[in-house]
Amino acid sequence: MVAEFITQIPAGDTRERAVCVSCGFVDYRNPKIVAGAVVAHEGRVLLCRRAIEPRSGFWTLPAGFLEVHEAPEDGAKREVFEEARARVELLGLIGIYTVKRLSQVQMFFRAKFAGAAEFAAGEETSAAAMFAWEEIPWDEIAFPSVEWTLRTWHEGEDGMARLERFSTSV
Amino acid sequence: MVAEFITQIPAGDTRERAVCVSCGFVDYRNPKIVAGAVVAHEGRVLLCRRAIEPRSGFWTLPAGFLEVHEAPEDGAKREVFEEARARVELLGLIGIYTVKRLSQVQMFFRAKFAGAAEFAAGEETSAAAMFAWEEIPWDEIAFPSVEWTLRTWHEGEDGMARLERFSTSV
Repeated sequence: MVAEFITQIPAGDTRERAVCVSCGFVDYRNPKIVAGAVVAHEGRVLLCRRAIEPRSGFWTLPAGFLEVHEAPEDGAKREVFEEARARVELLGLIGIYTVKRLSQVQMFFRAKFAGAAEFAAGEETSAAAMFAWEEIPWDEIAFPSVEWTLRTWHEGEDGMARLERFSTSV
Repeated sequence: MVAEFITQIPAGDTRERAVCVSCGFVDYRNPKIVAGAVVAHEGRVLLCRRAIEPRSGFWTLPAGFLEVHEAPEDGAKREVFEEARARVELLGLIGIYTVKRLSQVQMFFRAKFAGAAEFAAGEETSAAAMFAWEEIPWDEIAFPSVEWTLRTWHEGEDGMARLERFSTSV
């Protein structure tokens, strides 16, 4: 069953919103946050081969949609565990990448393994592997934001954007 | 009219979501992004006195909810204009502040006036004013994130977090 929406300005609002003709629900839409991480160990970075569409078979950084009541830092760690079965600590913010067309704001963090460098293919992943910088398969990277994040990470390995400075949550 | 929702796991999902009993609409909920700015000029920062609840009468940084298809950088500039009638350029990211209880992820940017240092009370604002650091009315600040952002900005005026490095959008 598909809901039918009409476009109108709700009372007390200044912009047009989607309103369900059946039940009156106002669907306030906001951009969605994607949180992910570059997990590095001995100069190599952790990439996941996607097992689902879009871009199945291509390599990506572990990342996914933030859930309600979740901080981006926590969402990034959760996604690394779900997709690559790795427990990590975050070290800092790499950057923010917005895909306006999709209304996605993606945040990527620098990370290291919390204990041993253990990982495995998790949900939505067909393979997980560590790549040296010169081994990264640029022609098989899933999304532009993954390449931007890897290159920004590579430029900024000096640790300038420390997490305690750039991000906090309550 | 109020929509009635039940909680269930939709097909293809792994978590419980709110589903409208009337029309079947799945209300995927995600944290909302708030974007704002510290606009500085000759050592002073721009604050707005809130004309609306919550915290009417208290001082805040110009900031508000990001709209769909909007980058945080653009949302911050829009909010500065709506609330303080100032045209600004962004210089860098100050930090990210998450309020888990409210599912808000707030991003604040360093900014300067794009032309002359002109501003005025805009929508939802009863007064706009520039404050020297020692003049900031800490007892009349609207939200904890405003104080955190001002203090983080004050520590980081060296320009380390340049916008071109930490944020991009397509």
